[in-house]
Amino acid sequence: MKSYRVIGFDADDTLWHNENIFEHVHERYRELLAQYHDAATVDRTLFATEMRNLALYGYGVKGFMLSAIETAIELTDGRISAEEIRTLLALGRGMIEHPVELLDGVAETLAALAATHRLLIITKGDLRDQERKLAKSGLREFFQHVEILSEKDEAAYASVLRRHGIAAEEFLMVGNSLKSDILPVLALGGAGAHVPYHLTWGHERVDQPPVAPGRFFQLAGLRELPALLRA
Amino acid sequence: MKSYRVIGFDADDTLWHNENIFEHVHERYRELLAQYHDAATVDRTLFATEMRNLALYGYGVKGFMLSAIETAIELTDGRISAEEIRTLLALGRGMIEHPVELLDGVAETLAALAATHRLLIITKGDLRDQERKLAKSGLREFFQHVEILSEKDEAAYASVLRRHGIAAEEFLMVGNSLKSDILPVLALGGAGAHVPYHLTWGHERVDQPPVAPGRFFQLAGLRELPALLRA
Repeated sequence: MKSYRVIGFDADDTLWHNENIFEHVHERYRELLAQYHDAATVDRTLFATEMRNLALYGYGVKGFMLSAIETAIELTDGRISAEEIRTLLALGRGMIEHPVELLDGVAETLAALAATHRLLIITKGDLRDQERKLAKSGLREFFQHVEILSEKDEAAYASVLRRHGIAAEEFLMVGNSLKSDILPVLALGGAGAHVPYHLTWGHERVDQPPVAPGRFFQLAGLRELPALLRA
Repeated sequence: MKSYRVIGFDADDTLWHNENIFEHVHERYRELLAQYHDAATVDRTLFATEMRNLALYGYGVKGFMLSAIETAIELTDGRISAEEIRTLLALGRGMIEHPVELLDGVAETLAALAATHRLLIITKGDLRDQERKLAKSGLREFFQHVEILSEKDEAAYASVLRRHGIAAEEFLMVGNSLKSDILPVLALGGAGAHVPYHLTWGHERVDQPPVAPGRFFQLAGLRELPALLRA
């Protein structure tokens, strides 16, 4: 493997648990609407609302909550009570206040790599929410820069690399989303290490695995990263 | 006046109208709740909810909407209808989709200054929302960097200046909020030009005008800025 001087890390579901918090709230949401619709209809309608609102709201808990309230009103033909909407608001606050739980081996791996590589966080979502999670994580010290973006596509990565004077050839991106973490970086000529999380939000799913011999690596966990970089 | 090489600009209510959009929605919100409470109670309760949620939600339309829904449920003892909450959601979407209306003289002033100075935008709020407004404004080309922050306090400005290699002594910040645009920059040793907007959100109000002889300037509009810089 060629040598990568700079390593970018996604945050949610790469460094710490996130989708499991959404999944728990989805369960509560299905229960709340169970008297009106089956779980599959609730899931499908909520996801459709989220996708319709994505350009407007962007990623993150607040946009999710607004879409969840909108969907609940729609699915109940306006019969949902204010008390139930209050419950939804409380669920949203609970998501934002949720403790940050690191994934296995993250702190040790970052500590080891920070000694030999330049490390970046490149994440998307709500600005304050991501900053809060990073502060709670205790991982800030390992990263030279933190980039919180509204979207993680080819143009966004190109802009980050340019801004920090990083050549694509020396850059490896690590993350759980093929769509947001791996494919755009491969397209720019960089490398990607995919570390799947056990849950993937529908919006991040891709049908085709990347084809980029020698630049795409599949890992089972972050602990495998130092060995990959030494290989 | 000493020479300032770098000029930072706030965005909302400094480059384009913003608070008037909130004010319009506040009017609609008071009407919606008029059968339950007088306007002053509605305003006071909504502001209290916003302040209570600020650390959690941060600045921006989405947090405002969540606080507005929460307040409406509280002020009606849960009697607000789902249909009325749907109206609130539509008001929020309308705010996000609102056209960007530049303040008087902004485009000409920026065009003139961009030829002689390094210009930055330093704004706070929702990431995607601010990016969208900047794109709609047609002003992007005048700015070397755009910083969208979750908070604009002394630490945040210090970090921006450090990141871009700017000495506080060569930096002038221009904005409508004494609290967010002027006071923290003066505290760091930089200069501030205050350009008031005709509406000020309660959270941004300060009781004491800044005392910083030779480093604080009061302007009536952005058009006065080039003359100030030549003085």
